[in-house]
Amino acid sequence: MKWCRFYNEEKISFGIIEDNLIIPVSGDPFNGFEKTNKNLLLEETELLIPVFPKTFYAVGVNYLNHVNKMSKLTGRSASPPTAPDVGYRANNALIAHNKPIIIPKDATEKVQYEGELVVVIGKEAKNLNKKNVWEHIFGYTIGNDVSERTWQSNDRTLWRAKNTDTFKPMGPWIETAVNLENMITTIKVNNKIKDQFKTNNMIFGISDYLVKITKYITLFPGDVVWMGTDEVPSNIKNGDVVDIEISGIGTLSNPVLKKIS
Amino acid sequence: MKWCRFYNEEKISFGIIEDNLIIPVSGDPFNGFEKTNKNLLLEETELLIPVFPKTFYAVGVNYLNHVNKMSKLTGRSASPPTAPDVGYRANNALIAHNKPIIIPKDATEKVQYEGELVVVIGKEAKNLNKKNVWEHIFGYTIGNDVSERTWQSNDRTLWRAKNTDTFKPMGPWIETAVNLENMITTIKVNNKIKDQFKTNNMIFGISDYLVKITKYITLFPGDVVWMGTDEVPSNIKNGDVVDIEISGIGTLSNPVLKKIS
Repeated sequence: MKWCRFYNEEKISFGIIEDNLIIPVSGDPFNGFEKTNKNLLLEETELLIPVFPKTFYAVGVNYLNHVNKMSKLTGRSASPPTAPDVGYRANNALIAHNKPIIIPKDATEKVQYEGELVVVIGKEAKNLNKKNVWEHIFGYTIGNDVSERTWQSNDRTLWRAKNTDTFKPMGPWIETAVNLENMITTIKVNNKIKDQFKTNNMIFGISDYLVKITKYITLFPGDVVWMGTDEVPSNIKNGDVVDIEISGIGTLSNPVLKKIS
Repeated sequence: MKWCRFYNEEKISFGIIEDNLIIPVSGDPFNGFEKTNKNLLLEETELLIPVFPKTFYAVGVNYLNHVNKMSKLTGRSASPPTAPDVGYRANNALIAHNKPIIIPKDATEKVQYEGELVVVIGKEAKNLNKKNVWEHIFGYTIGNDVSERTWQSNDRTLWRAKNTDTFKPMGPWIETAVNLENMITTIKVNNKIKDQFKTNNMIFGISDYLVKITKYITLFPGDVVWMGTDEVPSNIKNGDVVDIEISGIGTLSNPVLKKIS
């Protein structure tokens, strides 16, 4: 089942996508809902980010190819994480499918996409174990963890490198039924494939992270956990369009604009 | 004016504190409100955190005494921040005045308070300048940035060191009218003064941070920015009570419990 979020009669509404239609619901998928007897054309509806998280978690480095290739590029030694220690991103930076990534005028040319699987929490969760993790997940969406690499290297924190307004596209919708083992992430810039990798080929998997996180932290319905990216991302620039496709979910597409004033 | 937040007739409500009474309002202080003709006794009302932020910013190291004394203690060289690069904390960890700080059973004895001034944003803000910063601030409250120092040193991120459930007491209320230059932060454990410092004696001040942040990031009404702590915090343990007083605001008080199972 595909869930989306949009403005309907001037209010934010959740909806279920069936073929090319959105069926708006009353309520929400986390606390209970009822389908309305209305429908909207998907392609004529401006989607919002599919959920607004209470807390926005991001795993960071989580693929071995990425670690090794980045190490070759930078000449620094490869050091994959030794424990599933989660990080954070900021809600201000979230934008929906089709909305522009806006690069500040003083950013360097090293602004890059990162295509990521996003886990959406469905139920309040503390002290999960490897077995009951999965029933606390509502579904999956796609994230683009846009990063300014010069700021990422030089600032004391990741605040503007990762969390500048518009640097966190998320969507287009949440898919509740996926087969993790079959998923492929494909990243295209201007319709040309730049990177492609097995989505679930992670150093620490989804259940590793959720078990470890919930040993100390309560996850809430609508919280998101971005799972990291593989390969070596490329620069993006004014006029580009970045598509992140994850098979079984869909494609998150965002144009890129560079501010000139 | 003092603003608080609490449950009133099974709904979350904002209220204005006048002497020993709370006047509940309809609406909220950010988008407009009206006083009701009711009142509640402050001391009989269980307060909630005074605001639930969209994004939770935290400045980290921001006092020179703290940098120098910590450097002497650890033998590492003192390196004060050279730019106002902000960090983040997580909403899951927020608890209200009087609620217990719960230390996980596998934490070391190095769990410490940090008494901090908290800035509460009042209006949506982008590209602020030194002059118009102040009209975008709604008011000030108090935060206790509880930290497990062993995890802080050893984990790849601050996730559990700083964001374990209950590690971010905030409150008791928001004071809208303060004189920053006169403020003193006093931290007591079990009613004994442990640390005392000039609240506004910061390396980078409130306006430095908000001007820099909003060059890249939009701040929203209700966002909070925790401004860091001075001196060298002490360990806290099961049975302790930690009071953070900031003159002109009030006192945030929380008992400490260590989990044994």
